[in-house]
Amino acid sequence: MSEKIGILALGHGSKHPHNKDVVTGVADLIAKKYKNMVVRTGFMNMNTPTMKEGLDAFKGTGVSTIVAVPIFLAHGVHTMEDIPQILGISRNSRKTTIKLDGKDVTLLYSEPLGADELVAELAFKRAKEALSSN
Amino acid sequence: MSEKIGILALGHGSKHPHNKDVVTGVADLIAKKYKNMVVRTGFMNMNTPTMKEGLDAFKGTGVSTIVAVPIFLAHGVHTMEDIPQILGISRNSRKTTIKLDGKDVTLLYSEPLGADELVAELAFKRAKEALSSN
Repeated sequence: MSEKIGILALGHGSKHPHNKDVVTGVADLIAKKYKNMVVRTGFMNMNTPTMKEGLDAFKGTGVSTIVAVPIFLAHGVHTMEDIPQILGISRNSRKTTIKLDGKDVTLLYSEPLGADELVAELAFKRAKEALSSN
Repeated sequence: MSEKIGILALGHGSKHPHNKDVVTGVADLIAKKYKNMVVRTGFMNMNTPTMKEGLDAFKGTGVSTIVAVPIFLAHGVHTMEDIPQILGISRNSRKTTIKLDGKDVTLLYSEPLGADELVAELAFKRAKEALSSN
């Protein structure tokens, strides 16, 4: 792709540091592995940057499309109602246009992580770690 | 390992079906890939089986150790306080002994998923899917 793509990793937020640490850590890993992507974070509650601040953080990067990826395991009220409302995206179209630096930028909204082999693999790895430290 | 190991996939639970679907789907994927494991599920809130019912579901399976794996992205109040209390596990030892079929069974408590390459890979996959369906 010749156009520049942004990824906005969306977190739930928490009064504890762990949720932000995980979402930020995941965003850093994506940015490290996919160096042509511009990666930012945004949180729904209790942490900053907020989701709107996260979108603003793409200013000056030249992205023409941003994909907002909920770093949530499953759909629920947050992914189906709260986040689309914050981002101004209808759940059906999963897409809108925002203005950044005076230009139109396409904003897409992806599915959450879901029941994927990669989650199963990671859960099994955590089980093995607990067994081996026993 | 000659001893029989159980994995209890722990879910948050939700009034929507998605959380249970994801946790159950992940448990099924683990069971399918690692056929020597006995895999069960347990939910904290709003869904069944409860976590205690999940432990009881290992009766008759002959497991000598069960690893409870929180299918949660990050630590928080649930993984640090609520679930250890339900399982009767101290956060420091991350281990206890329960009785099943009149025998002692070791119950271990693993870390949640965390900021792992596998989550980053999956989040990137969801972003790519959104881009390609645009």
